[in-house]
Amino acid sequence: MDKKKIGIVGATGFTGSELLRILIHHPDVEVEVLCSESKVGESISDIHPFFREIVDNQLEPVDNILSHDLDLVFLALPHGISMNYVKLFSKEPFKIVDLSGDFRLSSKQVYEEWYTKEHIFPEGIDRAVFGIPELFANEINGADLVANPGCYPTSAILGAAPLIKNKMVDTEQIIIDSKSGLTGAGNKAKRATHYSGVNENFKAYGITNHRHTIEIQEAFDRLFGKKTQVQFTPHLLPVDRGILSTMYFRSDQKMRKDELTKVYTDFYQAAPFVRICDDPPAIKEVRGSNYCNISITPDERTGWTIVVSVIDNLVKGAAGQAVQNMNLMLGLEEQSGLNLIPVSP
Amino acid sequence: MDKKKIGIVGATGFTGSELLRILIHHPDVEVEVLCSESKVGESISDIHPFFREIVDNQLEPVDNILSHDLDLVFLALPHGISMNYVKLFSKEPFKIVDLSGDFRLSSKQVYEEWYTKEHIFPEGIDRAVFGIPELFANEINGADLVANPGCYPTSAILGAAPLIKNKMVDTEQIIIDSKSGLTGAGNKAKRATHYSGVNENFKAYGITNHRHTIEIQEAFDRLFGKKTQVQFTPHLLPVDRGILSTMYFRSDQKMRKDELTKVYTDFYQAAPFVRICDDPPAIKEVRGSNYCNISITPDERTGWTIVVSVIDNLVKGAAGQAVQNMNLMLGLEEQSGLNLIPVSP
Amino acid sequence: MDKKKIGIVGATGFTGSELLRILIHHPDVEVEVLCSESKVGESISDIHPFFREIVDNQLEPVDNILSHDLDLVFLALPHGISMNYVKLFSKEPFKIVDLSGDFRLSSKQVYEEWYTKEHIFPEGIDRAVFGIPELFANEINGADLVANPGCYPTSAILGAAPLIKNKMVDTEQIIIDSKSGLTGAGNKAKRATHYSGVNENFKAYGITNHRHTIEIQEAFDRLFGKKTQVQFTPHLLPVDRGILSTMYFRSDQKMRKDELTKVYTDFYQAAPFVRICDDPPAIKEVRGSNYCNISITPDERTGWTIVVSVIDNLVKGAAGQAVQNMNLMLGLEEQSGLNLIPVSP
Amino acid sequence: MDKKKIGIVGATGFTGSELLRILIHHPDVEVEVLCSESKVGESISDIHPFFREIVDNQLEPVDNILSHDLDLVFLALPHGISMNYVKLFSKEPFKIVDLSGDFRLSSKQVYEEWYTKEHIFPEGIDRAVFGIPELFANEINGADLVANPGCYPTSAILGAAPLIKNKMVDTEQIIIDSKSGLTGAGNKAKRATHYSGVNENFKAYGITNHRHTIEIQEAFDRLFGKKTQVQFTPHLLPVDRGILSTMYFRSDQKMRKDELTKVYTDFYQAAPFVRICDDPPAIKEVRGSNYCNISITPDERTGWTIVVSVIDNLVKGAAGQAVQNMNLMLGLEEQSGLNLIPVSP
Repeated sequence: MDKKKIGIVGATGFTGSELLRILIHHPDVEVEVLCSESKVGESISDIHPFFREIVDNQLEPVDNILSHDLDLVFLALPHGISMNYVKLFSKEPFKIVDLSGDFRLSSKQVYEEWYTKEHIFPEGIDRAVFGIPELFANEINGADLVANPGCYPTSAILGAAPLIKNKMVDTEQIIIDSKSGLTGAGNKAKRATHYSGVNENFKAYGITNHRHTIEIQEAFDRLFGKKTQVQFTPHLLPVDRGILSTMYFRSDQKMRKDELTKVYTDFYQAAPFVRICDDPPAIKEVRGSNYCNISITPDERTGWTIVVSVIDNLVKGAAGQAVQNMNLMLGLEEQSGLNLIPVSP
Repeated sequence: MDKKKIGIVGATGFTGSELLRILIHHPDVEVEVLCSESKVGESISDIHPFFREIVDNQLEPVDNILSHDLDLVFLALPHGISMNYVKLFSKEPFKIVDLSGDFRLSSKQVYEEWYTKEHIFPEGIDRAVFGIPELFANEINGADLVANPGCYPTSAILGAAPLIKNKMVDTEQIIIDSKSGLTGAGNKAKRATHYSGVNENFKAYGITNHRHTIEIQEAFDRLFGKKTQVQFTPHLLPVDRGILSTMYFRSDQKMRKDELTKVYTDFYQAAPFVRICDDPPAIKEVRGSNYCNISITPDERTGWTIVVSVIDNLVKGAAGQAVQNMNLMLGLEEQSGLNLIPVSP
Repeated sequence: MDKKKIGIVGATGFTGSELLRILIHHPDVEVEVLCSESKVGESISDIHPFFREIVDNQLEPVDNILSHDLDLVFLALPHGISMNYVKLFSKEPFKIVDLSGDFRLSSKQVYEEWYTKEHIFPEGIDRAVFGIPELFANEINGADLVANPGCYPTSAILGAAPLIKNKMVDTEQIIIDSKSGLTGAGNKAKRATHYSGVNENFKAYGITNHRHTIEIQEAFDRLFGKKTQVQFTPHLLPVDRGILSTMYFRSDQKMRKDELTKVYTDFYQAAPFVRICDDPPAIKEVRGSNYCNISITPDERTGWTIVVSVIDNLVKGAAGQAVQNMNLMLGLEEQSGLNLIPVSP
Repeated sequence: MDKKKIGIVGATGFTGSELLRILIHHPDVEVEVLCSESKVGESISDIHPFFREIVDNQLEPVDNILSHDLDLVFLALPHGISMNYVKLFSKEPFKIVDLSGDFRLSSKQVYEEWYTKEHIFPEGIDRAVFGIPELFANEINGADLVANPGCYPTSAILGAAPLIKNKMVDTEQIIIDSKSGLTGAGNKAKRATHYSGVNENFKAYGITNHRHTIEIQEAFDRLFGKKTQVQFTPHLLPVDRGILSTMYFRSDQKMRKDELTKVYTDFYQAAPFVRICDDPPAIKEVRGSNYCNISITPDERTGWTIVVSVIDNLVKGAAGQAVQNMNLMLGLEEQSGLNLIPVSP
């Protein structure tokens, strides 16, 4: 089979360069073109010296996407920017995986409420499929526009799906307390990414109004079949990579830990990247890989069930899941190119 | 006034050495004797070179406590060990601040259930006062045995007290999601304290059964006047110092952020070490100091109120609070020796 | 005695805020005014929340320095900027400690060669005294303008002074390999201070041409009495605070470790902040304090002597030493306000 | 071609598990057996949960090596232990790559002097080939026992080889100042590996007498053709992975940076894992990969040349280089299985 031809727009960001790291060894695709809005003409390995002598391609202007005969394009751009390119490319023959938040929500109205920004391409919202392959593979298979989920939502949705889909918990009382490594904040130098504000530090942010709240809640609505309610609090960890979400669910049914674990094991039987664990997982167990590790612990004393879910925010929370979506969209093996072993320590 | 005479038992642990760091500059007391179970004869500055030429005292056997004419002794020992010395010293004229978990709970039964260990000195449990000066100063003033609270409980109880004491929330639906720096695990070398297991890592532990759960819950019971229920999950942060607790409370009353903030400001009006913040506090804002910073954020959309509370686990969560208790017990100014400015960055 | 009145210009940088942290508890001085070029009108505790309820002063424009009756002003500004204020204030009655590099070198020519920038106030170079109190106290005592040394130079000069002053080593073969925490790069957000470029990373920079090379070499020239030659390489450590310099000296005289250690102990007999150690010191032993810890190890096999010197770059390498200079300039006790115990861990 | 059969002894240490991480995807070999001295019967993925569902093999006793029909065995054991197995296996048909220090030096005498330990198998010293493929490929090709170099020596020897082999520098005046991540200290819990002693800290150790000194010097002797002299100082970095060596060489010839860079580029023309850089390399540029990045900077002012060399201590400094040696010993492609892209950030 000929290799599929791929373009990456926004190749210099953390997500873009992680896409490249993964795709270099992907057996079924070839990266044809790397585009950048701001670094045209520079070499990717000048910007990211770890690529030196592996990929030294020059960055091209985004318009060049149109002059290659591509099968699929990844847009690794900030929200608000990405929708312009999705619109621009909407009649092109290639498929798109959009890694921004622009096409993840259910409607223009919801988007504009949570992103406080006009959406200029609502047609794309209607066409886009929300890309969590473990839950929505059927739709992703045939999609030509996939909205790659946010990092926090991926950890939360995978961790909660069996309980919500199986209607085992009170969906109006869900607490999601998440902690993310700093790469989630992007590679732009700003006060929030200064080393000395992050190192030896820890804080919550976006309490009550982080945009991933609605992304999580809408996925829950869909799994549950009616409205749910989510309380979501993100925090910033002094590590490069990794998200851990601690989730609290109420239930009237009393189930033992082994019973609940079996519910999860069954639910994810066909999912190659979800690993159900007895002990609470640590983020380093999945670093650099596409795995999501999950533990489930009911508390008989209180009636709450505590689920802990970990991913690498740049892999399963971004570039890895994007490649997994690409695999489905292009009819490749779901795992192709994604057999990344966690790097530990 | 003559300086009060102080002894420290367990001077080489993180808590013991932090006590010493604070007491060296305390204007009203003098550290007469440093004791250790395992390092007798060594100099404190050989074990902790940062003390070199500041305190070079030799460590003495614990029995030497009896040969000094002391006003107060700090026991900075592991639980299970500490109760032996509290018993041994129970007829001595000096007061005791015990930093272990041995005397914090309400009864021998509760202790033995959560610590799975026999309590050999229940009389001490009856005599001991739970030492959070912001809440229980009256009892601490006259106490001769204070049980210094745990690090997680200090952050949680200070963060929750105004809501619980004022009966503003549903006390059966309290979620406490806490994250602690590694010094909370002590200075013993073990698998859990190996650098490469902590660095760039993050995990939950003790889900549903951490001993601080009951310590928090019993304090809530007391503030509320009847039984409460707490779901507590601790996590391990890759930093040396600091605890951040994110707490979730339900309430039927709708209050705005400014109203809730005023409730807290009023409640802690006389508390020199509690700082109420508009923005969620970060642990580095209190590092090295005795402060507890707290923010309160109601979510109109969901009805939950989110409280974030930060302390330095070795200071307000251990040695600093112990000195604050000592000040009250010895009739000194509450703030004496505790005007530590946070070290940042 | 009335307290001396102090101003700080550039109070929001890492060095400025560390000056404030130290001076708040200084028994003999009072900070009258905090100035900033860019943050006028904001509160220092809004910018640095760890100061909340301790110092909440508003930042004033730099000109306000002139409207207070001050004894001494600290300039904590970037080089190139600072010289303008030193010139502007040159007829004022207050003394100045300048923490920039503008007045540390021997001449306008040398400055312009290494800083590739015009020096607009060479008269200040002539008047300024290089402020290492352990070596140049006599001159500092009477000075009205002290150039506070750079962080790397402080660690290197204190570590090398006994060998060079005593003419014990070949002064044409000196290697200084230094490693600094990130706060040395300042609190401005830029590519070089982005968390993910620093965390889990380590690199050299400024090889052969870092400006501190000439600052170190000129101090050595002066101690030695004629020209010396220094090879200096700085590196960036993934920590907030601390500099460790590893220095290599050749000597024809063979001396044992204990003999060399005695040379150092004698040399620094009257220096309250220099601690001579048997084991190589670690940066955390001095963190948050004004100490410089030094070890000396001769290698019989090779004829090289290896000196390791550690300081906290923000304290002994900047604000602490500046206060020590201030103490001498104002006739106060050298140690006044500087009895800071290292914070460890 | 049938896959070659491989055994790993000491599979649970950092080096052993890194070997496994690499070999899992090696196209030409298969890991048949994982052995451990202390964890027999446990699953590798219980000890290292990041391997869960990837490799869940049970650990076997070391004797089991003999019951498999293996082509090559890796010994990832501490020095002093390893020599026993090399002796035990000396008549076996499989080849051995020994990752300990037991067979790296030139003679029993030199070993016993620097390791202060009796060597029980000097015959192995004579047979062993020192395994740096970039320099000694001819010997490695035919070897049945390769002593895999130490981590520090690999960084230093690769960084220095062109200058020494080409007789371009004074070989009696070589300074090597190296800094290593904590995994170099092994995964055993001990005072030196406690998180709070490493985090935010930095220190030198083994000054003048670290065992890697002689390993480096003997390699230099061999490259140069006669005796050289090395001053080596290792330091401990607060990162998991990476070694950076800063090396200082004197030369009478004056060469420009571009000329020196060309010397290196030519020297390593055929070396797939050495990348010559203009800017000083950072350890994160090679993390997780088998690359060694090197920069060369002459200082006209002083006559010193500064070489900076970085590797991942667990890959090019241990497991990766061991696989590279295996490839040569088994007649495979040198790069086979080693196309690891650095993980950054």
